[in-house]
Amino acid sequence: GLVELAAGCFAPGLLTGRRVVITAGPTREAIDPVRYLSNHSSGKMGFALARAAAEAGAEVVLIAGPVDLATPERVTRIDVVSAQQMYEAALARSPGADLFIATAAVADFRPAEDAAHKIKKQPGQSEMTLKLVQNPDIVAGVAGSDKRPACVVAFAAETQNVEDYARRKLSKKGVDWVVANDVSRTDIGFGSDSNEILLVGRDHSEPFGPAGKQQVARFLVEAFARSLGT
Amino acid sequence: GLVELAAGCFAPGLLTGRRVVITAGPTREAIDPVRYLSNHSSGKMGFALARAAAEAGAEVVLIAGPVDLATPERVTRIDVVSAQQMYEAALARSPGADLFIATAAVADFRPAEDAAHKIKKQPGQSEMTLKLVQNPDIVAGVAGSDKRPACVVAFAAETQNVEDYARRKLSKKGVDWVVANDVSRTDIGFGSDSNEILLVGRDHSEPFGPAGKQQVARFLVEAFARSLGT
Repeated sequence: GLVELAAGCFAPGLLTGRRVVITAGPTREAIDPVRYLSNHSSGKMGFALARAAAEAGAEVVLIAGPVDLATPERVTRIDVVSAQQMYEAALARSPGADLFIATAAVADFRPAEDAAHKIKKQPGQSEMTLKLVQNPDIVAGVAGSDKRPACVVAFAAETQNVEDYARRKLSKKGVDWVVANDVSRTDIGFGSDSNEILLVGRDHSEPFGPAGKQQVARFLVEAFARSLGT
Repeated sequence: GLVELAAGCFAPGLLTGRRVVITAGPTREAIDPVRYLSNHSSGKMGFALARAAAEAGAEVVLIAGPVDLATPERVTRIDVVSAQQMYEAALARSPGADLFIATAAVADFRPAEDAAHKIKKQPGQSEMTLKLVQNPDIVAGVAGSDKRPACVVAFAAETQNVEDYARRKLSKKGVDWVVANDVSRTDIGFGSDSNEILLVGRDHSEPFGPAGKQQVARFLVEAFARSLGT
């Protein structure tokens, strides 16, 4: 379609010489060797952003949770499973980067214990409680780090009060932008090829879409490039 | 390879006129609109069994959890997500069937509540407990039902004491066979294309493999057909 035809002339050189780190997909938090906690993130938005940033000339590192997607051309991919692994990869790769975009749907909590063997149901047991502990906050960790990228972006997947939560997230995480969307809608967001977002900055907010995720990615890359002063 | 070449002459007509119901894959248990509990089952073993049973002439219904696999030829597929949905589909389809094979890795427990909106982390909250309740036992339910198929088969994915757990499962669930494998091994089982199993019956047990999952499926279909008296 038109979007694909336009790819060749998208933002040529807009991010040349820039280093971009992007997290994408879900994380999986092990309960035991066979069971885990996860979420419905497909990783499509993060992979679309990696493609758009590479098209714009950036050197891109994509830190990906378990997803079944092809790595975009000229993108360095690091595969991780858990939030802790994603956190360590993000903190290792973000120093010296210009732009950090946290699209991954990171599990807020993980099981307090990862059992070495499969947990067996006890006879007559009809209930159990799973004790969870908080995972490290990846985007807040990067935004608060010594060698903070000039531009740090969080995503907010919400099911209600989308703009309100996005504004709170902006200040709580210390980030420059929050990209918010409503995941209660089945036509956009998780798993879909389309998205409709609200880009929330410190001074203003701007809606975009509904549009294909690659179009949304290009809109966002241009906005972040402007905020980097290119 | 040889296995594919041999497919045309596998057990022709061994299950002609027989009805077979197979469950496959993981289940997903919703925590809220974005989060879930699941497990690493790929569904490959169940899909291989469905293919083998159809090749042997059976009328096959495959009840599949969320997996990314093509439906084998001449197999009727019913897609489900949760254990409760799989239970209902299994009880609806098993009356009148000759053979029921439960390969699915069904979640033993599901969250006590499926929150209508995404659960928000509270400020300063560093731990949480997830209350879980027991799911219905699908294979025991089918094995104990009024119109019980003549042959009911359970699978046991274990990480230790494999034969011991399989024998206990046989009597506890009231099934005719348990197919046990050791999922702590990374070369076989979940996600792999190979498997090494121990077929445990009331009177004897028989190891098979390591071999491709389609070969394992044919070995099992022949064993179950013998036990049906064909």
